[in-house]
Amino acid sequence: MYRPEIKVIDCTVRDGGLMNKWQFDDKFVRQVYEALAKAGIDYMEIGYLSSEGMFSRDEVGPWKFCAEEDLKRIIGKSEKKIKLSAMADIGRIDYDDIPLKENSSLDMIRVACYVHQVDAAIDLAHHCIDKGYETTINLMAVSTVGLRDLEEALGDLAKSRVPIIYLVDSFGAFYSEDVETLAKRYMDSLPGKTIGIHSHNNQQLAFANTITSIISGINYLDATLYGIGRGAGNCPLELLISFLKNPKFKVRPLIEVIEQQILPWTKKIDWGYFIPYMVTGVLNQHPRTAIAIMESEHPEKITEFFDQATSVS
Amino acid sequence: MYRPEIKVIDCTVRDGGLMNKWQFDDKFVRQVYEALAKAGIDYMEIGYLSSEGMFSRDEVGPWKFCAEEDLKRIIGKSEKKIKLSAMADIGRIDYDDIPLKENSSLDMIRVACYVHQVDAAIDLAHHCIDKGYETTINLMAVSTVGLRDLEEALGDLAKSRVPIIYLVDSFGAFYSEDVETLAKRYMDSLPGKTIGIHSHNNQQLAFANTITSIISGINYLDATLYGIGRGAGNCPLELLISFLKNPKFKVRPLIEVIEQQILPWTKKIDWGYFIPYMVTGVLNQHPRTAIAIMESEHPEKITEFFDQATSVS
Repeated sequence: MYRPEIKVIDCTVRDGGLMNKWQFDDKFVRQVYEALAKAGIDYMEIGYLSSEGMFSRDEVGPWKFCAEEDLKRIIGKSEKKIKLSAMADIGRIDYDDIPLKENSSLDMIRVACYVHQVDAAIDLAHHCIDKGYETTINLMAVSTVGLRDLEEALGDLAKSRVPIIYLVDSFGAFYSEDVETLAKRYMDSLPGKTIGIHSHNNQQLAFANTITSIISGINYLDATLYGIGRGAGNCPLELLISFLKNPKFKVRPLIEVIEQQILPWTKKIDWGYFIPYMVTGVLNQHPRTAIAIMESEHPEKITEFFDQATSVS
Repeated sequence: MYRPEIKVIDCTVRDGGLMNKWQFDDKFVRQVYEALAKAGIDYMEIGYLSSEGMFSRDEVGPWKFCAEEDLKRIIGKSEKKIKLSAMADIGRIDYDDIPLKENSSLDMIRVACYVHQVDAAIDLAHHCIDKGYETTINLMAVSTVGLRDLEEALGDLAKSRVPIIYLVDSFGAFYSEDVETLAKRYMDSLPGKTIGIHSHNNQQLAFANTITSIISGINYLDATLYGIGRGAGNCPLELLISFLKNPKFKVRPLIEVIEQQILPWTKKIDWGYFIPYMVTGVLNQHPRTAIAIMESEHPEKITEFFDQATSVS
C-alpha cells in the first residue's frame, strides 16, 4: 500500500552540477527531463536560482542561474511534463530577479539555509510564496546543530507560512536512529507542516535513511539518478522508485537515461562511496577536505587523509 | 554503550575471492591478517575448506582449500593473532579431509547451505563440532524461501547442536523491515542460539541492514574491507567498525590496508553498486545474470539487461 502524500524530487542536475559546475549540455538536461516525466517523478530540481553576475557564465553552466530562456529551451514547444524546482541560496539571488510565478516555468523554489540564516530564509521564502511559488526551506547541516539552536529554528519555522521544511543530512553523518529522532522532533515542532529529507551517501546510508524517513512520516523525498551529487552523492533515484509502491512510478525510463547520460559521466567525475567521503561522514565534517584530496593528484593517500582528519591538534 | 556479545567476522579473502578465484598473493593475505588483528576484528574468514581435487589449483588460488600449510605461511612463526574461519560448502569437502581442531590453525568452520540442504549441513556441522571446531550454519538465499520450508528448516536447526545460525541475504534483496521480521522469527524459533547476518549490497543496504540486525539482537556480523565480495559486495568493514562502540575496535588499520591492498584491486575487478546487481537485488534473483553482463564486453547495456531480467516470458 502506498502513501499518496509522498512526493519525489529529483535533484540530478542541481546537486550533480556541484560536481561539474553544471556543465551538462542541453541534450543531457532534456533527456533527464523526459525520463523523469515518464517515470512519474513529481519534481525535477533543475538547478540553482542565482542573480546574473553572482557567478561567471564562463565558469558555471546555465543551471546555476535557471534563467527563463534556459528553462524554455528544455521544455520546448509542448506542454511542460513535470513540475520544475530551483534551489535558492541566501544572498545569491536578489528579490527583484525572481519573476512572478505566472511569468516563470518554475513551480517551486526551495530555500537552502544554515541554522543561523533561518530568519533570512523565511523572509526569502515568504517573498517566493507571495510571488506565487510552492516553497520549501531546506535546513542544511543539521547534524552539527545543537538542541537549543535547533529548537529556536524550528520554533521560527513553525510560525512561518512556509509549508514544507527539509531535514538535510549535508555531511552524510546520520544513522537511521538519528533520522528517526529528528523526524519526530521536526513533526512535533512543526504541526501541520510537511517534512522532507535530503540525504548524502558518505556512509552508504542515503537510501536506507530515506526509507527510515518514509517510515517516520516524512513525505518529500530527494534523490538523484545513480546517486549523482556532491561528494558521496545522494539517495539513488532508481533504488527509491523500486522501493515505492505507488504504481505511477516506473523505473525503466530511469535505467535508460542512466545508460545514456549518467554512465558516461562516471568516467569523468567521481561521486559515490570513497574513503575520504566516508571519513568526513563518520566524523560529521563538511566534505570540503575530502573533495580536495579526491581532486588532488593522490586521491589514494587515504591513510594520510584519515590521520589529518582525525588529528586533534 | 556496546554489547560484548557482538562478534565481527571479516570475509575479505573468502567472499572477495569469489571475484578473482582467490588470486590473492600471500602479501595481500598477510597484510589483511595483520590489519584485522590490529583493528580488533574477532574472526578472519580466510577462504573455503574444500577437498583437494574438487577444484583445480591451476584455476583457483590456495584460499579455495585452506590447507594447513597455506595457513601456516600466513601466520608465520609467531603466535596466531586472530581467530581463523573457513567456509565449507555441502559436497565440496570429504569429512575425512577435515583435520582435528588440534591439528589445524582454523578455529571455526561455517557450513553454507540452501534450505533443502539443511539436514546435510547439520550433519557436517556436527562432524566439525565433534572434531573440536566452533561451528555455524549459514542458511543462504533465505529471501526466496517460503514460510513452511523456513519453519521446517528452523525447526531442524533448533534441535541441532549447532550454536550459531546465520541469516544470509545472498541476493541483496532485503529491506530493513525484512531483516527485522526474519531476525525476530529466527530468534523465536531458535531459543538459546546466536544469530548472525551476512548481507549483500545490491541495493546499497548491506551496512544499513547490518545496523538493523544489531538493533534486532543479531550478534555475529559479517563484513569485508571496502565491501569487496561477490557481485555488489558486502557490508563494508570500515563502516561497521566506525559504527560499533566497543573501544577495542580500531578503524585506522583497516584504512591502511584498504589503501595498500584493496584499492589496487578496484582497478582490476568491479564489485559494488552497479545497475545489473541492483536489478537482480530488486527482483530477488541470483546475481549470475548480472555477473555475466558485468564480465561481458558491454556492461553498460543496462536497459537491455533490465528488459531481459524483468521479462515474464
